[in-house]
Amino acid sequence: METAAEVRRLARAGLWQGTTSGHAPSVHQANLVILPQDAAVEFASFCSRNPKPCPILEITTPGDPVPHASAPEADLRTDVPGYRVYRRGELVAKTTDVVELWRDDLVAFLLGCSHTFEHALAEAGVRVRNVECGTTVPMFRTNIRCRPAGQFAGPVVVTMRPIRSDQLSQVLSLSARYPRAHGSPLHIGDPEVIGISDVFTPDWGEAVAIEPGEVPVFWACGVTPQAVAQEARPELMITHEPGQMFVTDIPREA
Amino acid sequence: METAAEVRRLARAGLWQGTTSGHAPSVHQANLVILPQDAAVEFASFCSRNPKPCPILEITTPGDPVPHASAPEADLRTDVPGYRVYRRGELVAKTTDVVELWRDDLVAFLLGCSHTFEHALAEAGVRVRNVECGTTVPMFRTNIRCRPAGQFAGPVVVTMRPIRSDQLSQVLSLSARYPRAHGSPLHIGDPEVIGISDVFTPDWGEAVAIEPGEVPVFWACGVTPQAVAQEARPELMITHEPGQMFVTDIPREA
Repeated sequence: METAAEVRRLARAGLWQGTTSGHAPSVHQANLVILPQDAAVEFASFCSRNPKPCPILEITTPGDPVPHASAPEADLRTDVPGYRVYRRGELVAKTTDVVELWRDDLVAFLLGCSHTFEHALAEAGVRVRNVECGTTVPMFRTNIRCRPAGQFAGPVVVTMRPIRSDQLSQVLSLSARYPRAHGSPLHIGDPEVIGISDVFTPDWGEAVAIEPGEVPVFWACGVTPQAVAQEARPELMITHEPGQMFVTDIPREA
Repeated sequence: METAAEVRRLARAGLWQGTTSGHAPSVHQANLVILPQDAAVEFASFCSRNPKPCPILEITTPGDPVPHASAPEADLRTDVPGYRVYRRGELVAKTTDVVELWRDDLVAFLLGCSHTFEHALAEAGVRVRNVECGTTVPMFRTNIRCRPAGQFAGPVVVTMRPIRSDQLSQVLSLSARYPRAHGSPLHIGDPEVIGISDVFTPDWGEAVAIEPGEVPVFWACGVTPQAVAQEARPELMITHEPGQMFVTDIPREA
């Protein structure tokens, strides 16, 4: 279980493989969205209007890849394990750094991530299947729409974790303690109610089993901007690879 | 004690006099900062790095004066009791609407306000002097510096409320429940420690007495951007008149 600085160092060296879930237990992990300045104001509006999927941890100033408040030693161009590059809404590249793509007008958004509260669940004796399996949490588009802001509109994306029904109440109150990491669930139970036709075929990440006595629980997810990008089609959007987060120095309990 | 819609309607008609403190108990009140789009990205970064003085409730899209998430029936050009207009850091006008000044590139920021938790204090039996007196809470520049973001840098501004020492613990835990309304205090006790030489001569608002057995308690304040504007000197910044807030429809307990 690596620390925040270790995860970032390995990511920077191109040596980190797979999800950051289950690592750096004491800090916030973050979704990444990088946009040109022209689109960044509307995206800031979008995040402010959709705080469940897009809780703002930090916004950088144009051209500066250092998140001075969240991890002042880090570089957002290199310290995320995997990046996705979208042009006009199309996924055009997956890469391990974006040094060559960096521009003076790019603004980075760090948005809270449910990996952060997974540690609190595990410490309380709740099994977190995707952590136990070492897989990327399953993520799904839903039929819930975000509040629009300018060009940005689209569906809320959720993560799913199977939870034992006798632990539901505990899991709800524990996750609610982390509003900057998506907080309490958006939905509990029947996936079809939120427009998920097959809970074993995620749109991102890997499927997990739902065992007898378990209920699927759905949290808002910071991959939402990637689904939104496919509708809004901004000139350029760079994100993290789903499940492979930027690990901040912000204490989980801060 | 007016409701949110009533305060806004009276403000729109130019009929609201003085502070909104003590009114609309069930909703969030908000500080207002309006900036041209060019400066708005750096200011969004500034807010994200300084969440105690500048907790983001909503950011609007350029040119649209409607806060669709916070109060979809409202108009930010008219529904605040008083406005201040700063040009290159100089206060050039105080006005009751900014219809004539509105432009297609203006972006509004709504930032949480300590008026919101004053109601929770009063309901718990804590006397709030500025509410009892019907005056604007006293506000002070401090020697605490904000984290900078591009052109935006400056001192943290605080509000002061005298609290009975046997109620301090209760007041701390109650206000901490409202992180979007500045949350727990920045400082308790000796004003000089945070650079306030005379606690009875506020920089904004009106002085209040500190009675025997009371301790001055200081909370981060959303007037901070007005102090920052005087250092950053953006081309144009429009704010609320200190103490005269935009009253949202966001439930206090949400």
